[in-house]
Amino acid sequence: MTTTTREDCLALDRADPLAPLRDAFDLPQGVIYLDGNSLGARPRAALERAAAVVAREWGQDLIRSWNTAGWFDLPGRLGDRLAPLIGARQGEVVVTDSTSLNLFKVLASALAMQERADPRRRVIVTERSNFPTDIYMAEGLTAWLDRGYRLLLVDSPDELPAAIGADCAVLMLTHVNYRTGYMHDMAALTRLAHERGALAVWDLAHSAGAVPVDLHAANADFAVGCTYKYLNGGPGAPAFAWVPQRHQAAFSHPLSGWWSHASPFAMAPGFAPGEGIKRALCGTQPVVSLALVECGLEIFERTSIEALRAKSLALTDLFIDLVEARCAGHPLELVTPRAPDRRGSQVSFTHPHGYAVMQSLIARGVIGDYREPRIMRFGFTPLYTRFADVWDAVAILKDILDRQAYDITAARGAVT
Amino acid sequence: MTTTTREDCLALDRADPLAPLRDAFDLPQGVIYLDGNSLGARPRAALERAAAVVAREWGQDLIRSWNTAGWFDLPGRLGDRLAPLIGARQGEVVVTDSTSLNLFKVLASALAMQERADPRRRVIVTERSNFPTDIYMAEGLTAWLDRGYRLLLVDSPDELPAAIGADCAVLMLTHVNYRTGYMHDMAALTRLAHERGALAVWDLAHSAGAVPVDLHAANADFAVGCTYKYLNGGPGAPAFAWVPQRHQAAFSHPLSGWWSHASPFAMAPGFAPGEGIKRALCGTQPVVSLALVECGLEIFERTSIEALRAKSLALTDLFIDLVEARCAGHPLELVTPRAPDRRGSQVSFTHPHGYAVMQSLIARGVIGDYREPRIMRFGFTPLYTRFADVWDAVAILKDILDRQAYDITAARGAVT
Repeated sequence: MTTTTREDCLALDRADPLAPLRDAFDLPQGVIYLDGNSLGARPRAALERAAAVVAREWGQDLIRSWNTAGWFDLPGRLGDRLAPLIGARQGEVVVTDSTSLNLFKVLASALAMQERADPRRRVIVTERSNFPTDIYMAEGLTAWLDRGYRLLLVDSPDELPAAIGADCAVLMLTHVNYRTGYMHDMAALTRLAHERGALAVWDLAHSAGAVPVDLHAANADFAVGCTYKYLNGGPGAPAFAWVPQRHQAAFSHPLSGWWSHASPFAMAPGFAPGEGIKRALCGTQPVVSLALVECGLEIFERTSIEALRAKSLALTDLFIDLVEARCAGHPLELVTPRAPDRRGSQVSFTHPHGYAVMQSLIARGVIGDYREPRIMRFGFTPLYTRFADVWDAVAILKDILDRQAYDITAARGAVT
Repeated sequence: MTTTTREDCLALDRADPLAPLRDAFDLPQGVIYLDGNSLGARPRAALERAAAVVAREWGQDLIRSWNTAGWFDLPGRLGDRLAPLIGARQGEVVVTDSTSLNLFKVLASALAMQERADPRRRVIVTERSNFPTDIYMAEGLTAWLDRGYRLLLVDSPDELPAAIGADCAVLMLTHVNYRTGYMHDMAALTRLAHERGALAVWDLAHSAGAVPVDLHAANADFAVGCTYKYLNGGPGAPAFAWVPQRHQAAFSHPLSGWWSHASPFAMAPGFAPGEGIKRALCGTQPVVSLALVECGLEIFERTSIEALRAKSLALTDLFIDLVEARCAGHPLELVTPRAPDRRGSQVSFTHPHGYAVMQSLIARGVIGDYREPRIMRFGFTPLYTRFADVWDAVAILKDILDRQAYDITAARGAVT
């Protein structure tokens, strides 16, 4: 039984060195937003930046802004700014396209590299519980290559060592599971993959800006991720791709659009790949959405990922403790690891009426989300979530459960 | 020798029924913008719309906006709104991803359909002068399929009939050439392709919103295009893909992301394609950029493409006449067809110092652009270009040429 009180939470907020960062965000009144793992909140700066891009760069400077406003350089410039959050180096990251498409690019390149090294490797190992689009893109790619590739889906991280065999070309994992918040040991699994001759591709959708990531220390091969979750880049904002310098010369994929060409404005009728991370680009990018990514990244430069991680663990520990203490007796089951080193920045509980309970929470201003099956998912973004928010959210959850104030016949909507 | 005067041009503007539409755009003072074929001008409504999406939909409604603000439905809703401009039907168009990526999708599907129908067809016919990214994407796709596909690049439209042989799988053309403004006869070439057993894929980047297009009347098979040129959707705004109802059941491509899944929120670990045009989607879309596309499309609903075409031809005729009359004696050569039915909404002239002359024009507020080799490109968007603008642009061009007021040593930048 926890002895924590709301006063204790308020005291934690007063002592929180990250507390001032909440002012960098525009958050609606009366809402406890625990869904920053799905769509990050809006940086205040994003409104002014959107107006500047639309009114001045587009409206007044028009076509000249491709050069004068640096529109062409945005993918690389944002990538360089994002790089420190994931242990990448300058010139190794671009912000571009969607996570699905970036995964397609790096997976295609990884398979091609393996095909040259050892053509017997025809298996991509991943988890059945991986975010589905990663699996779908791997299916699409391998079906079209039509060279005997197959996906091996494991049901638990424990099965990975046995699954990564001599036929494994690529180990493709999402670092933090979108449903459970389970965090893989990136360094250990990458080492295992390499020992068995496989390449390791990591999806950082629920990691970048949420947990410390050091791609170089882990010796990872490729990574992709999302900017609109913990990085607060805006709805559907372009994703990122990481190609370490050591793989850039060999990097190639079928989506060879003009932005990846060595000399795009030579307008030559034959493809010649550009140098470096430019190879991960394809076509023209959505500038307004892309530019707003910078507003989110700027905020991270006012703190450190270590400080964020410390607060994130404190928030998720507190949430787990409070729910288990104050909602005891209700059929809630924690599916997120208790071990800090296996936990992302979210907490998920199952409830037999998880969908209905979540709808009631949302109606009461506590915004988390629901994921099949029966999972209520709560994201804790240390940039703007307060300890008192955690207390208040649990108090409302307790009230809903105690009074059974949820409608189990509610029709289901869908959120990403 | 033309007898047209500036007064005549002002009279044409006074009599122009489309003149009020110019007020729908925010155009900079002191600029004659003849580059709407590269980046369309900003609809006034776009600034307010950007603020609404960023401040209210993202900032206040947060994750709920995927449903309440219709973010999920944007690709299809915008596609339906764009459809009348290209002779497409409701449920046949989505606005999504980039032109490069959409071309990859439709070309992949066209090749797969042909592979089932007649596997001996292994040639994609296109023009060497096609916009390079189309060629690059075709190269990327076919190289990775590694099944003996090859591109056949012709040097002139006249060579197309001979090139489309029994081995031709797909005729892939850009309807209006980005450099010269040459417009193909879509119906005749599609008929020819079909007679020879090929499918016809059309890139409408320089057609949509610029010239009348009737994909169904032409019996075209697939089409893609751009929203940030004549459609004024904003810098790098997502592109469109058209898949006619008759091909939707057979439509498939390797970029099978979760937005094309039959039940994306079932989160099932196996891909099952959705119905209809949804199949042309892939991953999550950049909502802010995407939403602004609607501001451009709305303006087209206040007129007709026939009225726009009539003014476009009047503008380009006037420009050709004035340049040839007033700049006679200078080494300018028209590369755009004089025949109205072979001309898009741009006029291109070569000049030995085309790059330098264009830089001088831009410095004087006449914004066109330059394309290798030696081509000065002038786009005429009838929504906001005035007849007097044409007069004034030619007057400035004449002055620059007469005085040789251009720097032939100028370093070259690049614009899209």
